[in-house]
Amino acid sequence: MNTKKMLFIFAVCACCSVTLIAQNSVNNVQMPELQRQVQRTNIRVPNLDAYETLKCDFHIHTIFSDGVVWPEIRVREAWEEGLDAIAITDHIERNPSKPHVGGDHNSSYEVALSSARNYDILLIKAGEITRSMPPGHLNALFVDDVNKLDTEKPEDAIMEAHRQGGFLIWNHPGWKAQQPDTCKMFDIHRKLISSGVINGIEVFNEKEWYPIVMSWCVENNLAVIATSDIHDVNAHFYPLEKYHRPMTLVFAKDRSMESLKQALFEKRTAAWFGKYVAGKENILNELFRKSVSFRTFPEPDAKKQYSIEIKNDSDFTFELTAVSSELPSFSVLPNSSVIVKAKQNGNFAYLVSNWFINTGKNLPVTITF
Amino acid sequence: MNTKKMLFIFAVCACCSVTLIAQNSVNNVQMPELQRQVQRTNIRVPNLDAYETLKCDFHIHTIFSDGVVWPEIRVREAWEEGLDAIAITDHIERNPSKPHVGGDHNSSYEVALSSARNYDILLIKAGEITRSMPPGHLNALFVDDVNKLDTEKPEDAIMEAHRQGGFLIWNHPGWKAQQPDTCKMFDIHRKLISSGVINGIEVFNEKEWYPIVMSWCVENNLAVIATSDIHDVNAHFYPLEKYHRPMTLVFAKDRSMESLKQALFEKRTAAWFGKYVAGKENILNELFRKSVSFRTFPEPDAKKQYSIEIKNDSDFTFELTAVSSELPSFSVLPNSSVIVKAKQNGNFAYLVSNWFINTGKNLPVTITF
Amino acid sequence: MNTKKMLFIFAVCACCSVTLIAQNSVNNVQMPELQRQVQRTNIRVPNLDAYETLKCDFHIHTIFSDGVVWPEIRVREAWEEGLDAIAITDHIERNPSKPHVGGDHNSSYEVALSSARNYDILLIKAGEITRSMPPGHLNALFVDDVNKLDTEKPEDAIMEAHRQGGFLIWNHPGWKAQQPDTCKMFDIHRKLISSGVINGIEVFNEKEWYPIVMSWCVENNLAVIATSDIHDVNAHFYPLEKYHRPMTLVFAKDRSMESLKQALFEKRTAAWFGKYVAGKENILNELFRKSVSFRTFPEPDAKKQYSIEIKNDSDFTFELTAVSSELPSFSVLPNSSVIVKAKQNGNFAYLVSNWFINTGKNLPVTITF
Amino acid sequence: MNTKKMLFIFAVCACCSVTLIAQNSVNNVQMPELQRQVQRTNIRVPNLDAYETLKCDFHIHTIFSDGVVWPEIRVREAWEEGLDAIAITDHIERNPSKPHVGGDHNSSYEVALSSARNYDILLIKAGEITRSMPPGHLNALFVDDVNKLDTEKPEDAIMEAHRQGGFLIWNHPGWKAQQPDTCKMFDIHRKLISSGVINGIEVFNEKEWYPIVMSWCVENNLAVIATSDIHDVNAHFYPLEKYHRPMTLVFAKDRSMESLKQALFEKRTAAWFGKYVAGKENILNELFRKSVSFRTFPEPDAKKQYSIEIKNDSDFTFELTAVSSELPSFSVLPNSSVIVKAKQNGNFAYLVSNWFINTGKNLPVTITF
Repeated sequence: MNTKKMLFIFAVCACCSVTLIAQNSVNNVQMPELQRQVQRTNIRVPNLDAYETLKCDFHIHTIFSDGVVWPEIRVREAWEEGLDAIAITDHIERNPSKPHVGGDHNSSYEVALSSARNYDILLIKAGEITRSMPPGHLNALFVDDVNKLDTEKPEDAIMEAHRQGGFLIWNHPGWKAQQPDTCKMFDIHRKLISSGVINGIEVFNEKEWYPIVMSWCVENNLAVIATSDIHDVNAHFYPLEKYHRPMTLVFAKDRSMESLKQALFEKRTAAWFGKYVAGKENILNELFRKSVSFRTFPEPDAKKQYSIEIKNDSDFTFELTAVSSELPSFSVLPNSSVIVKAKQNGNFAYLVSNWFINTGKNLPVTITF
Repeated sequence: MNTKKMLFIFAVCACCSVTLIAQNSVNNVQMPELQRQVQRTNIRVPNLDAYETLKCDFHIHTIFSDGVVWPEIRVREAWEEGLDAIAITDHIERNPSKPHVGGDHNSSYEVALSSARNYDILLIKAGEITRSMPPGHLNALFVDDVNKLDTEKPEDAIMEAHRQGGFLIWNHPGWKAQQPDTCKMFDIHRKLISSGVINGIEVFNEKEWYPIVMSWCVENNLAVIATSDIHDVNAHFYPLEKYHRPMTLVFAKDRSMESLKQALFEKRTAAWFGKYVAGKENILNELFRKSVSFRTFPEPDAKKQYSIEIKNDSDFTFELTAVSSELPSFSVLPNSSVIVKAKQNGNFAYLVSNWFINTGKNLPVTITF
Repeated sequence: MNTKKMLFIFAVCACCSVTLIAQNSVNNVQMPELQRQVQRTNIRVPNLDAYETLKCDFHIHTIFSDGVVWPEIRVREAWEEGLDAIAITDHIERNPSKPHVGGDHNSSYEVALSSARNYDILLIKAGEITRSMPPGHLNALFVDDVNKLDTEKPEDAIMEAHRQGGFLIWNHPGWKAQQPDTCKMFDIHRKLISSGVINGIEVFNEKEWYPIVMSWCVENNLAVIATSDIHDVNAHFYPLEKYHRPMTLVFAKDRSMESLKQALFEKRTAAWFGKYVAGKENILNELFRKSVSFRTFPEPDAKKQYSIEIKNDSDFTFELTAVSSELPSFSVLPNSSVIVKAKQNGNFAYLVSNWFINTGKNLPVTITF
Repeated sequence: MNTKKMLFIFAVCACCSVTLIAQNSVNNVQMPELQRQVQRTNIRVPNLDAYETLKCDFHIHTIFSDGVVWPEIRVREAWEEGLDAIAITDHIERNPSKPHVGGDHNSSYEVALSSARNYDILLIKAGEITRSMPPGHLNALFVDDVNKLDTEKPEDAIMEAHRQGGFLIWNHPGWKAQQPDTCKMFDIHRKLISSGVINGIEVFNEKEWYPIVMSWCVENNLAVIATSDIHDVNAHFYPLEKYHRPMTLVFAKDRSMESLKQALFEKRTAAWFGKYVAGKENILNELFRKSVSFRTFPEPDAKKQYSIEIKNDSDFTFELTAVSSELPSFSVLPNSSVIVKAKQNGNFAYLVSNWFINTGKNLPVTITF
């Protein structure tokens, strides 16, 4: 605009619109700018051809065990963070653990239910069987009455959950408090897995990753699970401005409790924690293809290089490592694009080095220049 | 996880992974964490049924007039910010204006061209005819030789641009340096508009909005234009973490120079600045419908209220004001959802109070509970 | 470094340091980068010559009335946000209000106490007398036994708090639920103020400002109070990345419970909410002088202007409005400096237009060019 | 406030204050919220007892060599980022390198000078002697006429700079383009150092750290230097929201060109890059003590632990590693505090593991519980 623009600005006073607000009223001035605008931030993850992608956290505590917030807060956190489904899994054996807090093992579910309906969050009735190793801790999802899981012997609690139609997850198998030097499967787990009682295992819990679990899930066709196991306020514990909370993606026919349950029992899941994703190859392959698009430049550039723009429409991060060392390795951040150049055109093998289809094994993809 | 979790954490040391990096080499330690990761951030705006939405800035300066950066920077800014097309519009009359800088009126285009090809940014050859009011300043886009626009009389420059097939925009008509107390159209503008020489007007320039211009665009079927008119580094001038730079959305058959030019001459544009959008009703109506989706809750809640979730997949902000005062007014931020409740179901009239289809006239929409 | 530097970088891969972490262990990989680093963020407010400035919030709820978090969270929020002292003020009459939560009116204090000691937060024993208007709601600070304030008549509760040595604050006098159209003082308040029973009034509560209250505080020598009245998680309700929570600054001999109490009874306070500060002139004047420093440039510049750099070492924002319209008005953000230029040197009168020393009256200051 | 507070807020509409702004004027609506507020952000680094700490960048390029911005931008960047002094060091041998840009080796200094005066930035006249290795690249600061350094033989340029009273810095000795496999000192460097011609060496350049350089600086009493060597827009290259740009701290008698020069020749400097600091032990020790304060809790807590609060008033990060493994290691972020607990009281040895007093040697400090 200004042909002699004063670039030389010393104090552009963007907010010095002198405080006229005070004059409006001496009685009561509302100041909405001092309050956060409460909205649901959508998580950008593509659906699959045949399934809707539900964002779920199946391991959460409240004041009714050793968590620090009222159950309603867990629903509101889930809604604001863009989740579809949660299970509140208060510890059964030590519930309630706080002075002045009563209730029984169904209380946190019952207290949270009206909030869940208001926010349209799928709230799964659940509890955490909390025992020494083996069998350790297990979450029982989709149970009818958590109180009946408060048994003396862990096997009885597990079998009661199974009788109630529960989906059972073996929690944090490599937790150092229970397996300080290793992360191994015990006979009881093998038995419960082979008999279809244990249906999933946490490959990630809170801030711990158990890479070995992926091989167990692939070998035994178990659901791959990542959870927050949150006890604290979520925004206090996780840097939510950097990453979504750890979650399990469930690929369901639709966004309903029935389809969610069916998808879990059919083991259609993936684990997402930080910039990492773990799951079966066919699922991760489809997720990758639906998240990323490619645009090839028609002509080589002045330096005789072939160019490709790789566009990531999702909230995932992709770290793409060339199998052949001549090609560039690069990463594509959420909602971003990069341009990559190669000296020749053709199809080239890459690994998504932060996505895992088995223990130590990355998703292979092909990029065409 | 922990049934007696130490909530009571004094100093969780996330980054205290003692500096082993130094041991790797005493000669040269690369520290990529000290560098920004250069990527293109995609702008989320839907395409229309028949057209692709191109994000464009048609008013930009460089070192070759009174800007402060080398032309290449303008291409890289555009690429990083997610734009598709730019015009560098250095002032013709005072170009070059800097000590030690030579060149002619085509230089900034010529210098920027190889970068534009490397980044696949559509670079429009252009210049700014910079005269006193009337006619004021006009941008000439799609010209062949900017040097020929360096004439004594402004009319000659304008007609030469027109002869070269140029698309002419009347810049910042309400700029106080040229129209301190008003924003009026002069006879010369009327003549140039009616004869098809002026094809668009800036309704927004840099940080100024000229609301009256919308009525001129509607009455005369002109392209509605918003531009940055950036002279400074873009990231120095605009708070890019809050808003995209001001831009013109162009609805083109495809992402090519030919389709962009055709769309402009057919006046398929909208102006986007801060949280505001201005454009013709049919275009804004389609943009709204493609950005927002609704999910109605099947049943009234415990308080006999009907609920609807309104989901915004775009980078637009929608401020929805109920025409009937009984209904809630609310806003939906980019990539967010809100749940709104009403005492009865049915169709209700709202205004998108930050979207303008004419001077002082908001886009009307219907929301169904 | 590079004389032919490739400015033209397409995908600088800052984090693509291929995921070697996974190789370390297949059992348990700790991922501290997924966790927030828990630290106390210091609030930068200067001390006065004779007093230490304590940052305090005297109105806070927990699960033991209608809040949603366990008392310990209130201590941790205070510590992380840089506060020195808090009072948990659960509603007396309706405490506890939640299903399955028992306890008495002292429970939230007792539960929070060990956390307060661990974090060295001054925890004031307190409760909120919650009645219809008049007298409305009052916070009783420094009481011995909150249970004794659970009386039938409000006067009895107030006098019992006074007998226990309590510091009484009249809360949110302009709250629309109790004074929909006005913000007036009732006879009972006048009586309690003149008899020294009410010692402070909230000029700000949660997100509401009652400007009229400043005149009451000045006329009656009452403590000016701002509080959060937080029920929700603090980080959910307030945009803490933009502003500190609303707080009362108390100017005390040292950081001890005794000095804090003495300072309150001697009415040495200021209210800080968003970018606004309200308090008595002598206090605000000293706060201003200790927050801001000036550096005068020795010579006029090429345009014969005198320059001054104004440096703000505090977290306050100063909006400085020139009393004489020839001088520039400007604002100085937290931890920032501006350079201001004037056509002549000398002393010039300004108002800090976002700081209030009485209802509608700004702090006057002098700036010397 | 509300004893039955609707925690259950679906769409708090903080900014839906329906757009009344448009009604103010149809001609020209100023929108300052679309513009960044230009201020100087102060860098918080303590002064030493005897010296003021100046924040300096001695290696910067502009359009007059292979940089991309006009010299004025370098002054404004420095001012906004809180620096005190800069040297523009355009390449002498290839200056100017751009089409249509003329001038000589003094042009960038001359063009920047009036901005430097307006912003009160100390602008050092300088140039970069740009030769193959040995001797590689050297910056000559405080020279009178850069044109005279444009000699055929590198030795002549160096000696001319020395004759002009120049302060000579050996730049990026470990740059892989010149020393791909090592970072070694050549005979010519040894000679120039021992004869007092080379006075400083870059231990850090742009995003590269050369740890070996610290031992050279300690052995030869040279100034430790860190620089940006910026060619791009600073805000494009560095993640300034995370770290200040790389800089050299100079400990000078006052903020004047004379004292800055004297301090450099007396080698009172430290290098600061990302979270790392490198410098001589006495200087780093004083910087640490002036940045950090300790507050010991008088009594052991319930678990018989002694507590200490460690408060960091500076913009430095301190990673404190216990020499004895029984004590906790922790880090203290800028403007933050941590509380650390120990089983016994006493004095304990720690290392500041991200601060270096020699190659591979951390600053030792003592912490008293």
